[in-house]
Parts: sequence; structure tokens; C-alpha cells
Amino acid sequence: MSAIVTVTLNPAIDLTVALDHLTPGEVHRAHSAVSNAGGKGVNVAACLADWGVNVSATGFLGAGNVHPFETLFRDKSVGDGFIRLPGETRINVKITEPGGRTTDVNLPGLPIEADLLPRLNDRIRALEPSLLVLSGSLPAGLSPSIWADMASHWQQQGVRVLLDVSGAPLQEALSREELLFAVKPNRDELAAVMGAIPDDAALLAQARALHRNGIGLVVVSLGSEGALFVSEEGALYAAPLKVGVVSSVGAGDAMVAGLCAGISEDASLERLARLSTAFAAGKLRKIGPHLPPKQDVEALASAVSIAAAEDWIMYGRLSGEQSS
Amino acid sequence: MSAIVTVTLNPAIDLTVALDHLTPGEVHRAHSAVSNAGGKGVNVAACLADWGVNVSATGFLGAGNVHPFETLFRDKSVGDGFIRLPGETRINVKITEPGGRTTDVNLPGLPIEADLLPRLNDRIRALEPSLLVLSGSLPAGLSPSIWADMASHWQQQGVRVLLDVSGAPLQEALSREELLFAVKPNRDELAAVMGAIPDDAALLAQARALHRNGIGLVVVSLGSEGALFVSEEGALYAAPLKVGVVSSVGAGDAMVAGLCAGISEDASLERLARLSTAFAAGKLRKIGPHLPPKQDVEALASAVSIAAAEDWIMYGRLSGEQSS
Repeated sequence: MSAIVTVTLNPAIDLTVALDHLTPGEVHRAHSAVSNAGGKGVNVAACLADWGVNVSATGFLGAGNVHPFETLFRDKSVGDGFIRLPGETRINVKITEPGGRTTDVNLPGLPIEADLLPRLNDRIRALEPSLLVLSGSLPAGLSPSIWADMASHWQQQGVRVLLDVSGAPLQEALSREELLFAVKPNRDELAAVMGAIPDDAALLAQARALHRNGIGLVVVSLGSEGALFVSEEGALYAAPLKVGVVSSVGAGDAMVAGLCAGISEDASLERLARLSTAFAAGKLRKIGPHLPPKQDVEALASAVSIAAAEDWIMYGRLSGEQSS
Repeated sequence: MSAIVTVTLNPAIDLTVALDHLTPGEVHRAHSAVSNAGGKGVNVAACLADWGVNVSATGFLGAGNVHPFETLFRDKSVGDGFIRLPGETRINVKITEPGGRTTDVNLPGLPIEADLLPRLNDRIRALEPSLLVLSGSLPAGLSPSIWADMASHWQQQGVRVLLDVSGAPLQEALSREELLFAVKPNRDELAAVMGAIPDDAALLAQARALHRNGIGLVVVSLGSEGALFVSEEGALYAAPLKVGVVSSVGAGDAMVAGLCAGISEDASLERLARLSTAFAAGKLRKIGPHLPPKQDVEALASAVSIAAAEDWIMYGRLSGEQSS
């Protein structure tokens, strides 16, 4: 059995509130309010469940307000492996106005003590992962090395680990000798680790270097410019699909879900590039962590333009569309 | 057994969020966030429980986020008579800044269908009330006559009803022939029903008229100016206590709790005036629905200045402090 397990250490409830006009110091009556379970690993698991893959989500939730998570997991048949802690999961309030202005107020999360991590690893073991997705931010109180430690631990147990984190935790993970099965930084995250803003050629060179150093699959997402994919099969560029964008929230998580879907079917590098690009495009047309029906995603995957990464560099230079 | 039961049809969770400076359109990281169970009847019950009286709270709660309510009821030994409905209780977000500016975003509540009211009356019956407190706003979907209907129904069953509502529901209740045990409008609420802004003498005349028409106890709260109390024993004025104000939120609910405490001990009109003024003053020194220790409240009650209502009118006129 190929079980995918996602880990979210710092989940959140996204509370989206619609009102006419936000004026500081005033009392407002909102038209509507919607609570959604959030967190990168939760979003990845939701997309994978829509795709029809066996997936569980774990991490830490405050017992006081688990309802949106339990509803999502039940509705999508995501395995609920979250450990409940006293207190409440943080809420991120998103105040939207008709003109499109959005004001975010992100609340502090549950502090997590390091001695809870053995319990989490026990929980992961019980879920029997073949592929483990580690993604998202860290709660207050945990060392930035925590993601790298978990990745090393599980890779040594023979579990493939896909890492989608940023900043110091990404730097720490990339600096280790241990193999990492897959990593998916975006351009800015990789630039921060490199300590410089790379042009496209330098970005590709860095991705190749990470692969040479032992990471099986290196994916660099370029936002609206597409993505790079590097593995032992070579280096590919996937152009973004032109779709009507309803919400760009969670497109990166959908891309990770597409990679996981490909990995779980032992896909070629080209198929991985097509699937992850199609998942992201499908998600752009939806609000919330939902994927379109499978045949629609497959149609999108067929429509993705794939090129050798070197051709993309050349083409970008020739057409002047290079972003550096 | 003298059981007090409070009814809250439109409770709310108050989510108080502290941040540096609210700028519309920006992303903010809050320093702290606290969720408190709210709603007028919930606050009244919490104060009464602190006072040591046997009290239950009922009404409707969304099953999805009952945690702050269940915690409050458990911590204070308030009987939990709330009916759970699918969905979530509304959240009122209060964004506070160091300079004292507060921005309120009040979210829409659970819509309540009228056919749920028989279930509520069954629940109230099971709680065997000797005194029933009906207070607060109405959720969307209910007729403004609902409070008057409930008051009539329970008065006819021999249960004393204290009504603390405003606007059309207050007008409706005052226009009926049925006896009402007690009513506690504030100056503005009574003015709205009278259709005019009364001077102090007219306010007292109106309170006396309500009593003559059959309401056993008429209390008019005047905010920082004190309160009027009219019953078969006469008409009294209680001056406000000078206390350091920490939060004026819920002072009116504490006053209702003080009235209930007095009623449950068959207090004289003067004792009712002292207790309700002391409860309000005690609450002004606390954040959240908490009352100071009983001996502190009794000390406050002893310190309240009481006058014949006519003397207050005279004194106010003589000193030019009349508010009309």
C-alpha cells in the first residue's frame, strides 16, 4: 500500500470575513464569514484526497476548535492523524472588501514543546507512510532544525520525504549530507538560501547542484512563469497553463500534491511536471483546497507545454522574457 | 429550590486581538488573541454563578465552536442548558491597538428557525426556573414579538420573568396586557419606546406608569449617572459608585445579575438597588464576565448612596446636573 502522509506543525483556521468598508476605530457588521481549515500539509492532503489517493494528515491541533478540520477530513476522506493539544489552533482573519482590498490579521499559534515530537513520530509510524510531506511554517518554541531532523530520521527509515519549507529550516535541510527524496522551493526561497538573486541560468545551475548533492527530485516553482524539474532523468521546464484565476491561495500546495500524485504512480519526470502544473492550474480555478474532477486535471496535464530546461533558458534570453 | 435560568438566543464568541497598528490592506501579526464566550444571558449567568447562586443558561449554540462556552460553564459551575445546532456560533472580532483604538467586526449569527422555539421551551421547563431572564438581541429569522411571547408564556406558568431587551422587542413586551415581573431598560431604550427624549422627571413618570400597568419591578439604568428602581415599595434612586473602570463591557449584564441575586433572596427595593449597583461597580473593575469576591461586593453594596427618586429629581434640578 502506498500511503502518503502530510505533516503540518503550525496549522491555522482561515476566517474570511466580507464587509463593505474597513474603517479602523469603527464597529462593522460583516455580510458573511467562512471558516476553512488551513495549513500547507492540510491543503496538500485535501488535493490528494480529491485526486483519489490514500492520504493522511498529521501534526498538532488545538482541541478547542477542531471542527473545521474534522469536517474537511470527513468530507474528503483524509485520514485524521492530528494530535490534539489543550488550547486552540490559531485563526487567521482575512477581511475582504468589495473593491478587492484584503486586510490580514494573523493570530499567534499554539506553542509546541520539543518533547511532543517523539509523540508525533510515533503517530507518523502508525500511519505507515511510503511518502512523507513536510511543509509549512514552524510554531513558536521549535528549533529551525526540526524539519531537517525529521527528514533525516524518516529517510533513514526508508521513507521518501518531500520537503516544502522556507528560510532557515530550508537552509538547514539543504546543508545536510543526508539524501532528501524531493524538495520544492520557489524562486524567492531558493534565492534566500543562495544569498543572491539568481538569473534563470543560475537558478537552474543551483537546482542541478542540489540534485547532484543527493536530492532525488528538485522542483523550483516560478509562480506565474512555470516551474523547473530536475532529477536523474534530466532537467525540464513546464510552462504555466493559462486559466482563469479565481484564487491563487494554495496553488503551491496543489503543486506539491501533484508531485505526490506523480511520485505515487512512479511517474516519469515529464509526467511529474505535467501533473504538478495541472494540479496548480486546477486549484487556481477553485476557492478552498479543492481540485477539479480527475478527467479535467488529466486534460490540463495533457495541455502543459514541456521543454528542456536549457531551451527555456535560451528561449527566455532570446525573447527578452528572462526575469532576472 | 430557587433556580435562575437565563436565555440567550443570539450568543457570540468575543475574539479580542491585540496588534500594533491596524492598516487596511496590510498583513498584520497579532501579539495575542483571546476568545471569550459572550452574549447577555451568558454574562448574567456567569456573574450569578460567581455570586454563588444556582443558575443555568440556555438558548442556541452552534456545535462547531462550543469550546469557549463549555469552558466557562465548567469553570463557573453554570448549568449548561444550551441546545446545540449544526454550524457555528457567530464570532465578534475586536481588534485593539496600544493607543486604545478598537475596531469591531461583528460576524453574522446562526439563523434560528421559529420551529426551534418549542424545543427551547421544553428545555427551559426541564431546568425548573423560578426566575427567568430574557435578554439580548434576536438572531436573523425570528419575529420581534418572540421575547414578549416567551415572557407571557412563562409568566402564565407562574415563573417570574425579568426582561432586558431593546427596540421593537421591548416595545412589543411593554404594550401587552400581561404582567411582567421585572424590566430593565436603560435611558436610551426607554426613550426609544416613548418616542421622545425624556427629562429625568418624565423618565421617572414613565417608570412609575409601567409599574402601575402591572410590571412588578421597573429598573432604569442611567449608565454613569446611576439607576432608578420602582416597585410597590416606591421609587428609589441609586447613585453610581466611584470605582476605577477597567472595562465597561458587561456592566449592564452585571446589574441584571445583581437584580436576580436580590430577587432570589426576596430583597427589599433598597437592597435590590444596592446589590445591582454593587454588581455593576464590581464588574467595572474586571475584564470578562467575572465578579469580585462576595465580601467585596457586599462592601460595595453598603457604600451605595440611596435617595428617594423625587429627591434625586429635585437635587438634579437644583444642582443643574439634570441630563435632559
